[in-house]
Amino acid sequence: MSGRPSDVRDAADVPRWHEEAEVVVVGLGAAGSSAAIEAAATGADVLVLECASGGGGTSATSHGQLYLGGGTSIQKACGFEDSPEEMFKYLVASCGPGPDEEKIRLFCEHSVEHFNWLVGKGVPFKESYFAEGTDPMTDDCLSYTGNELAHPWCEIARPAPRGHTVRQQGPSGGVLMQQLLGAVPDAGARVLPDTHCETLVVDRERAVVGVVVRTLGEERFVRAVRGVVLTTGGFIQNSEMVARYAPLLLQCTPVGCDTDDGSGIRMGVGAGADAIRMEAGLVVLPFVSPVGLRRGVLVNRQGLRFVNEDVYQARAGELAVYGQGDDVFLIVDDTIFERTDLPSVVAAVGADVAELEAELEIPYGSLQATIRRYNEDAERGEDLLFHKAPEYLTPLANPPYAALGCGESERCTTFSLGGLHTRPSGEVLTPDGREIAGLYAAGATASGLAAQGYNSGISLSDATFFGRQAGAQAAR
Amino acid sequence: MSGRPSDVRDAADVPRWHEEAEVVVVGLGAAGSSAAIEAAATGADVLVLECASGGGGTSATSHGQLYLGGGTSIQKACGFEDSPEEMFKYLVASCGPGPDEEKIRLFCEHSVEHFNWLVGKGVPFKESYFAEGTDPMTDDCLSYTGNELAHPWCEIARPAPRGHTVRQQGPSGGVLMQQLLGAVPDAGARVLPDTHCETLVVDRERAVVGVVVRTLGEERFVRAVRGVVLTTGGFIQNSEMVARYAPLLLQCTPVGCDTDDGSGIRMGVGAGADAIRMEAGLVVLPFVSPVGLRRGVLVNRQGLRFVNEDVYQARAGELAVYGQGDDVFLIVDDTIFERTDLPSVVAAVGADVAELEAELEIPYGSLQATIRRYNEDAERGEDLLFHKAPEYLTPLANPPYAALGCGESERCTTFSLGGLHTRPSGEVLTPDGREIAGLYAAGATASGLAAQGYNSGISLSDATFFGRQAGAQAAR
Repeated sequence: MSGRPSDVRDAADVPRWHEEAEVVVVGLGAAGSSAAIEAAATGADVLVLECASGGGGTSATSHGQLYLGGGTSIQKACGFEDSPEEMFKYLVASCGPGPDEEKIRLFCEHSVEHFNWLVGKGVPFKESYFAEGTDPMTDDCLSYTGNELAHPWCEIARPAPRGHTVRQQGPSGGVLMQQLLGAVPDAGARVLPDTHCETLVVDRERAVVGVVVRTLGEERFVRAVRGVVLTTGGFIQNSEMVARYAPLLLQCTPVGCDTDDGSGIRMGVGAGADAIRMEAGLVVLPFVSPVGLRRGVLVNRQGLRFVNEDVYQARAGELAVYGQGDDVFLIVDDTIFERTDLPSVVAAVGADVAELEAELEIPYGSLQATIRRYNEDAERGEDLLFHKAPEYLTPLANPPYAALGCGESERCTTFSLGGLHTRPSGEVLTPDGREIAGLYAAGATASGLAAQGYNSGISLSDATFFGRQAGAQAAR
Repeated sequence: MSGRPSDVRDAADVPRWHEEAEVVVVGLGAAGSSAAIEAAATGADVLVLECASGGGGTSATSHGQLYLGGGTSIQKACGFEDSPEEMFKYLVASCGPGPDEEKIRLFCEHSVEHFNWLVGKGVPFKESYFAEGTDPMTDDCLSYTGNELAHPWCEIARPAPRGHTVRQQGPSGGVLMQQLLGAVPDAGARVLPDTHCETLVVDRERAVVGVVVRTLGEERFVRAVRGVVLTTGGFIQNSEMVARYAPLLLQCTPVGCDTDDGSGIRMGVGAGADAIRMEAGLVVLPFVSPVGLRRGVLVNRQGLRFVNEDVYQARAGELAVYGQGDDVFLIVDDTIFERTDLPSVVAAVGADVAELEAELEIPYGSLQATIRRYNEDAERGEDLLFHKAPEYLTPLANPPYAALGCGESERCTTFSLGGLHTRPSGEVLTPDGREIAGLYAAGATASGLAAQGYNSGISLSDATFFGRQAGAQAAR
């Protein structure tokens, strides 16, 4: 698969238009369906092109969790106070460095409205709070899916749980997409599945006026009277792009459909767009959840801690891969030990910490000193070094001890966060900050709320919320 | 100052060409002068445009150190064995993640020839080795200016000193530039000082065919028959660009002339070029040199070590700013304490480590444990945790103790490493990897040998070596 931007086609070279719509949406995942619904809601004629036989994309395979807040009805029903301002403070602090404050502002101010929009489309949420972790595998809704309760964020903004998981036992991305996909024809948008698109058509002023579709080796041309919305997902399955833009992520296992091949980003860049934050990625260590494992002690190759273990799993992963060379272990005792949510390996076991240390080839005494210190702090009930919350602070004192780690195939998981530079309203920008006429993007094809730091649910919120903005703007 | 790419001018809108040359070089620092010399050496008519009243740029204010090796006459005279292959292995390992191996390969294979070329231009080097540090302030030449002797690089490639400092008491960048600037007219190239240029002229095929010059509010047009070489320096003095591309560097003090305003990068991107590794920067902690301070203990806000202190200063700075939130201290005792090369502050003093720890508000006991462990390892002569070389490993046992740190104005220093994506031969590339006809770049305007990891002397080597390639290629 090529990692290079796609060539554009000159409109003058289009022999004839086989199809035409006011708004053409490329890719029918969460972003594409939201864009199509909102574009069609304005009365525009909307055509969606999807390369797979059915819509859904990576969103349909996800946990079905959306990051929403500011005082949704679910938050209120469960007794949690939240406001757009607290949500804004938290996201600015956790989505950096250098997050897009304009996008975060718009998102926070309209988050309640967006939740209601989803409900209006038939997406079901239960009025319940799930306290036992970040990803309810029950049909519960609300949970913490970020660092809100952890130091230092708990001092920056008043914490509130903002993960809203769609009502369903087990992963619920399929339910979300079922509702959104159903709403697309309801809104009046047409969908063409099995339709592969890798090329934009531009006019003499470099405005985007259509797309080229390939079927059975033949080219067909689809005219977009008002605009094209690119919602084809991210690029984590395109190893050439990952090597070029985010080499540190090569050591991780990509998460997402094959269609996360960066085609939308490559089409956009080929048409003159800027791709930003391309080095950024979500990283999840395979051994930091379920939540009980926060009672473990995360150490690097030197046996030293580097973070409070109650940060959100994405933060721990980011620090491990971008700061510790991905060479970290979670130390647990027999009390804490449990099966991890993702496949991980037991890198070593020991009757005492000294034995574990030797097994791991950690320099003599270092892990012992770390655990001794940790246990002293835990006894006193205060993690003086990293300020882990007291509820996860218990001495590791029940042998045997184990170190959880990565294996050959049990690696960190990752997806890309960088993408096309867009306005909050979806217009794709050139490197000099100008809009490319007729071109819009949303979802993982664009650089969104998370410049680097990630909270779970952000991807689906990014996709649906900014998909809506892009669709509406393209139809205007 | 704008952080945005510059508009290009359409050649059809040029009323007349006021000047013409086969090769137009924009910027007369180390890269620009090297490009001009080599372009003129081919017999081409070369015109250099420099915005200041005289050439030199940031290179003239530098230490005058070039990273060269593979067996230069100085290395041989001083008894050091080196080869292009060992140099290649070291640079690939230290310039990452994701270094440009093609550039490193070319540079290593021709490093001896490049040294001889500099000598041929009258750049003086003394056949002497300076063992006391990285930057000889004597007139000595050869010194270690990277991590060659430090773990783990000493196990990856056979170490050799490769810093070649120009012969002069004190900073010698001025001497280097005096010789190179003198060689520019000798080679037959013309120089126009006080000539500001922020705009490229492109033809209908988007090939670069000239530049626009502004003088006294008037525009003048300079035609470039074969090509334009952009050598205007980096972008560290353009805070809008730093905020946009490398937000972590905003907390550091920029190093470089005012003309490091990113104008070349902005011109290139405006003409369709790709700018890569824009998040990367050199970072120097103000308290890690002179070399005797490697005997100190570098700790973070938690009182924990994070690196072997004998790594090169750029590596320590990179880990501190990109990995530790720039919140680090160097712990020394009275034996080690000495005045730092760069302005730093004494963040705390203490009659013992406990007092120092309290002063620094490091969590109780953590710094004491770190120093205790360090001292035990030092007594035994082996730094088990980070493998600092034994010569820098002495117990901290002579009170009082001090912590060196950053202050309000005594901050880390930085310059940018990212820039235009170029071939080793200087052609500027678009995001899809195609050459922009007529456009070349070198020096800090391009992304060079250091994708992120930095060794001192790389900048001047990048500038002179790849400046030569770009000039020769443009003239071809």
